Amino acid sequence: MKVTTEYLYFNTKKRQEFVRITDDLAGIVKKSGVTEGLMLVAAMHITAGVFVNDWENGLIHDFQVWLEKLAPAGLEYRHHQTGEDNADAHLKRTIMGREVTLPITNGALDLGPWEQVFYAEFDGQRKKRVVVKVMGE
Amino acid sequence: MKVTTEYLYFNTKKRQEFVRITDDLAGIVKKSGVTEGLMLVAAMHITAGVFVNDWENGLIHDFQVWLEKLAPAGLEYRHHQTGEDNADAHLKRTIMGREVTLPITNGALDLGPWEQVFYAEFDGQRKKRVVVKVMGE
Amino acid sequence: MKVTTEYLYFNTKKRQEFVRITDDLAGIVKKSGVTEGLMLVAAMHITAGVFVNDWENGLIHDFQVWLEKLAPAGLEYRHHQTGEDNADAHLKRTIMGREVTLPITNGALDLGPWEQVFYAEFDGQRKKRVVVKVMGE
Repeated sequence: MKVTTEYLYFNTKKRQEFVRITDDLAGIVKKSGVTEGLMLVAAMHITAGVFVNDWENGLIHDFQVWLEKLAPAGLEYRHHQTGEDNADAHLKRTIMGREVTLPITNGALDLGPWEQVFYAEFDGQRKKRVVVKVMGE
Repeated sequence: MKVTTEYLYFNTKKRQEFVRITDDLAGIVKKSGVTEGLMLVAAMHITAGVFVNDWENGLIHDFQVWLEKLAPAGLEYRHHQTGEDNADAHLKRTIMGREVTLPITNGALDLGPWEQVFYAEFDGQRKKRVVVKVMGE
Repeated sequence: MKVTTEYLYFNTKKRQEFVRITDDLAGIVKKSGVTEGLMLVAAMHITAGVFVNDWENGLIHDFQVWLEKLAPAGLEYRHHQTGEDNADAHLKRTIMGREVTLPITNGALDLGPWEQVFYAEFDGQRKKRVVVKVMGE
């Protein structure tokens, strides 16, 4: 069995930004030499997430409008009494998800035709990290 | 270590439908010969999901009413400018989740007494696929 | 390869309560002897969840207010026609998530500086269980 660990780093220009990482992950599978197994991809920060969905700018816009409706910025969150101003980012990442686990089959990510993996930043403009763990044979 | 891969296929009669798949998954565990390990169950389409909850028709109805409230169909989503009409399905699947990972213990799915696994279709009436990856010994 | 299974038990005083379990999980990693691998942490009850977020009481309060807004108790849910009164707990747990998968690196949980793992109870005051499966080498 092989287990490998990689980290992806992000420092987005905007506070909220979705970054496609499918190709980075495909590269990590190749480098790992694993042909059958699982890949965990998880945000290491609690105001960011990882999700799988469509690579279509209109839908990415829709996601962001929708998240703002479900978990608005600028409310009087109790978390802000600590000096923070990002409670909404914690809530938004909860909707989108912290992590995905991807199957590796025949030496490649076993994804459907429209599946793309994204890093979802909700409190960016600073250095953030994603852990990628590959386990298999 | 063993790693096996199976696919489940769906073509639901209704646009939105929840299909119980616990027994299919239990069969895949047996077939795999794995007695201790993990099973990843993931939708391969971005308008469908996989989740664990109660096998009770009233609650399934409640879930669907609730999802319609949180992520309504028929709004003027920007995604629809591409000719699509299913932005709500992408959002609904995000709430319910793309995937679950299930423990395998003593040769069977290690689920609580009320845990049932469902395929959640939000844009059906066409062929869709779920990947099931078993890894363990 | 090693695979180990542990269960955590909860019986919360309040109906809704978030319990930090990071240290319990760190202990399970040590006990398992696994230095590189994955840990699945999953609620075995469908009115409870497991999530990763901030250990800050203000934010925990914000989460609970937010969940009450997105999935209110006391509505006329169809699930309640069975005699149950906890449909909101099923919905709330769906938002927060059933499970997390954590990476194990160099013999410890590979978590970001602010990541804390919580058990999220939405229908407590009774005995509940979480399964913890460690797989690796």
